[in-house]
Amino acid sequence: MATVRGFLHPKTATGRSSLIPTPPWHYSGDLLTVEYRTDPARVAELLPEPLSPAADDPGAVAIIWADWQSCGESGEELLDPVRAQYKECFVVVRCSFEGRTYSRCVYIWVDKDFAIARGLHQGYPKKLGSIHQTRPHPYGLGAPRVAEGGRFGASVAAADRRLAEAVVTLREPSETNGFVNGHPMAHHRFLPSIERGMPPSLDELVESGASSFEAGPAWKGDFELRLFDSPTEELSRLEIVEPIGAYFRQVGVVWNGGRRLA
Amino acid sequence: MATVRGFLHPKTATGRSSLIPTPPWHYSGDLLTVEYRTDPARVAELLPEPLSPAADDPGAVAIIWADWQSCGESGEELLDPVRAQYKECFVVVRCSFEGRTYSRCVYIWVDKDFAIARGLHQGYPKKLGSIHQTRPHPYGLGAPRVAEGGRFGASVAAADRRLAEAVVTLREPSETNGFVNGHPMAHHRFLPSIERGMPPSLDELVESGASSFEAGPAWKGDFELRLFDSPTEELSRLEIVEPIGAYFRQVGVVWNGGRRLA
Amino acid sequence: MATVRGFLHPKTATGRSSLIPTPPWHYSGDLLTVEYRTDPARVAELLPEPLSPAADDPGAVAIIWADWQSCGESGEELLDPVRAQYKECFVVVRCSFEGRTYSRCVYIWVDKDFAIARGLHQGYPKKLGSIHQTRPHPYGLGAPRVAEGGRFGASVAAADRRLAEAVVTLREPSETNGFVNGHPMAHHRFLPSIERGMPPSLDELVESGASSFEAGPAWKGDFELRLFDSPTEELSRLEIVEPIGAYFRQVGVVWNGGRRLA
Amino acid sequence: MATVRGFLHPKTATGRSSLIPTPPWHYSGDLLTVEYRTDPARVAELLPEPLSPAADDPGAVAIIWADWQSCGESGEELLDPVRAQYKECFVVVRCSFEGRTYSRCVYIWVDKDFAIARGLHQGYPKKLGSIHQTRPHPYGLGAPRVAEGGRFGASVAAADRRLAEAVVTLREPSETNGFVNGHPMAHHRFLPSIERGMPPSLDELVESGASSFEAGPAWKGDFELRLFDSPTEELSRLEIVEPIGAYFRQVGVVWNGGRRLA
Repeated sequence: MATVRGFLHPKTATGRSSLIPTPPWHYSGDLLTVEYRTDPARVAELLPEPLSPAADDPGAVAIIWADWQSCGESGEELLDPVRAQYKECFVVVRCSFEGRTYSRCVYIWVDKDFAIARGLHQGYPKKLGSIHQTRPHPYGLGAPRVAEGGRFGASVAAADRRLAEAVVTLREPSETNGFVNGHPMAHHRFLPSIERGMPPSLDELVESGASSFEAGPAWKGDFELRLFDSPTEELSRLEIVEPIGAYFRQVGVVWNGGRRLA
Repeated sequence: MATVRGFLHPKTATGRSSLIPTPPWHYSGDLLTVEYRTDPARVAELLPEPLSPAADDPGAVAIIWADWQSCGESGEELLDPVRAQYKECFVVVRCSFEGRTYSRCVYIWVDKDFAIARGLHQGYPKKLGSIHQTRPHPYGLGAPRVAEGGRFGASVAAADRRLAEAVVTLREPSETNGFVNGHPMAHHRFLPSIERGMPPSLDELVESGASSFEAGPAWKGDFELRLFDSPTEELSRLEIVEPIGAYFRQVGVVWNGGRRLA
Repeated sequence: MATVRGFLHPKTATGRSSLIPTPPWHYSGDLLTVEYRTDPARVAELLPEPLSPAADDPGAVAIIWADWQSCGESGEELLDPVRAQYKECFVVVRCSFEGRTYSRCVYIWVDKDFAIARGLHQGYPKKLGSIHQTRPHPYGLGAPRVAEGGRFGASVAAADRRLAEAVVTLREPSETNGFVNGHPMAHHRFLPSIERGMPPSLDELVESGASSFEAGPAWKGDFELRLFDSPTEELSRLEIVEPIGAYFRQVGVVWNGGRRLA
Repeated sequence: MATVRGFLHPKTATGRSSLIPTPPWHYSGDLLTVEYRTDPARVAELLPEPLSPAADDPGAVAIIWADWQSCGESGEELLDPVRAQYKECFVVVRCSFEGRTYSRCVYIWVDKDFAIARGLHQGYPKKLGSIHQTRPHPYGLGAPRVAEGGRFGASVAAADRRLAEAVVTLREPSETNGFVNGHPMAHHRFLPSIERGMPPSLDELVESGASSFEAGPAWKGDFELRLFDSPTEELSRLEIVEPIGAYFRQVGVVWNGGRRLA
């Protein structure tokens, strides 16, 4: 009988076809973050047991646009950049498990299949979307600078419907790029049974986070944010009650596995 | 604590955001199939235990292009067709398990996220690709007819590289549209542990197939097929040693779960 | 000096690279048409001199979704269908020139570059969009039939914003698939001078239409239509004042040039 | 009669729907350039009269990948970045007209419709493609630095076929980012007559270039380049006979019209 190899499907004799390589996975990218408060009940309804709302600021939401390059340990994807580049927009809330505060991604859209596959492993509830965020550039009038008054736009759409759009204006350097996404992530990994009416084949609560992190100076500022309804999306239920802040930061991240919580 | 709903992620209070609805899933589409024999060792190396090569014709391969519309029980996707339409190209071999012959999809590319998600449930090793197949049409010179001499082209690409292309010429009506994809499917469902070095969190062998099937008249014919190498794909290892036949058929299918084999 | 060849750019020694071949161009496809009356002033404001509003029913508008395969005289695109298939949504009004009634496309979105290039030649004001329309199919529950009660959806989006969506329910066979798009087309072909402040380099009024046309039975029915605003689109100004009808028809068309009107 | 407005189609009462705004157009972006010598006859065959090969180094070719943000005078596209961002790969040779040396783009692929439309105005022979180039980033292992040893990949595909791919390794700072694209551009603007057999409706030779230019430090290095054949493309005829160099540079550019040469 054959031995098939590969971190994920499709598995082959060599393992070369696997949609994603074995971690660690390396990321370099720009994060544009908008934080605000919504009705805490709208956050709570997204937190299945054994999770509960965060004790502090339970209605806080972060919507984060990220423009990434990523690769496995070999780095070969960086020389064939269609395999390295992707964009995402993800929505993070906070929750509590066994007395500890976690971040949790409740919605996320990405634009590549390898990003979907990594999310499957990490417990991010990924869908495909069309994601854009303004990139800073040091020359010309086709881009803002990372400086006071720099203005950045961002949007996410899925199934040909715009779901969110934001405009961020940088005001001053910042200690952080927000707090909602600042904890380890508590995610579910779930797959129903192939047999109707049976318990799920997979239903885990897992924790993970960056195994290594470096970042440039953070900037904060003001934002405008609009959320739009869709028949297949519920992001717009996380209504904007009170703005917190907006942030821009360049980061380098390594992800290298996590641990099972429950 | 909240109850979250949805057949798959992201789960919400309503379940409306789930990337896919609860089965049954309905499909209407056109299948363009090319069957040939490759070196049986190239098939065998893709069959992990407890699977073994099919006793009969163990080198037979089918490459199938499918142009689908699909929906859940409500049928609502059909009125918002960006959510219903997708194309796929999949590669099927045969194998044996406990003395029974199964079909098995070893490679598959689709062009929508909901198709990826259904494949996750069904055990299809899906990646995103760009898939095209000629559609027949009864009027004008912009399409072949489903008739003797009708010619159909097809291609699949991933990561901006063409992986396969075919031209099929219909010759005569046929009893079948091939035999390689004619058995129940034996697929693995697999997810590594989030913890490095631990056994997989999910590693199942499952069987499934259409719970209902209807089809129009099948046609058979000749084909040309070219497979191309890629750094991330191994389809071209399934070299064409001997052509078997090519087929066109319109089908309606229902999928409604399967059962665990091992 | 070299002789370069090709119907359009890029021109080369062989002409093989031309984005589109020399006409005639052949089309086979399905048309889903919605017709309604808007404020005639909203149509009139889109008709530059020397055009004037149609004498009869000057507020009539047709929005047409089309799912095409197309090719040049060789038909080679049909065997490499990524080069043959495209979808479009176009908006047609009527106008008058020298006492004759013409149809005129005021907005159109397509999803391939060769379609943009043909529109450039024909005077269609094409942009890229994401276009979908339900396809009928004879088998399964993944598609409507072309029959009483058959329901078809359609949508068009550009720049990640949905611009229009429709649902059509077929009721009965019809003599026609509408009247708004039933005249020869009167289009402008326009390109500004490369020199600022100079007259346009190209500013023609041209007439064209199908040089050959065949069609299957037409069906008519009811429709729902929603138009959405966008910062870069003005389709939603053509507000729906009174519905006329909706139609489905399969057609085969040849386009082979036109003539200059002014 | 109505006055319709807009720099390009579709023209409306407001002009807001025009696919592109009136110049000037602003660009900020990163250029990855590969220069080499091919058989000068392969360049000459792409130069229609009244152009002739450049006197000096007539076989020099530049293939340039560019990752752009761009906008019109208002800059509004930058806050809705799906309308500002695009990528392109273009192939430049040199030629002579009336004793002066010009650059000339002979092939170009872009990924947005507004880029196609600007190319129509400027005389670039644009097609749609899928274009990727590695982006430098200061943090993490998901990107090279702009520094000695920094490695960048790039690719271009059209119609699901890869046409070119390159890997560039930076070695040292450079005075320039190449010389082939360093002259004013001499381009044809061409549209056939809508009437078969008649002279073209538009056939101009125009000159244009940046009206303003700023740039960061240039880097030069080594490269590997592979060109692939395609039924619809002839880039691979520009075979690589002798490498010249590879370059990376960030630039800011303004384009604001040109002048007619013939």
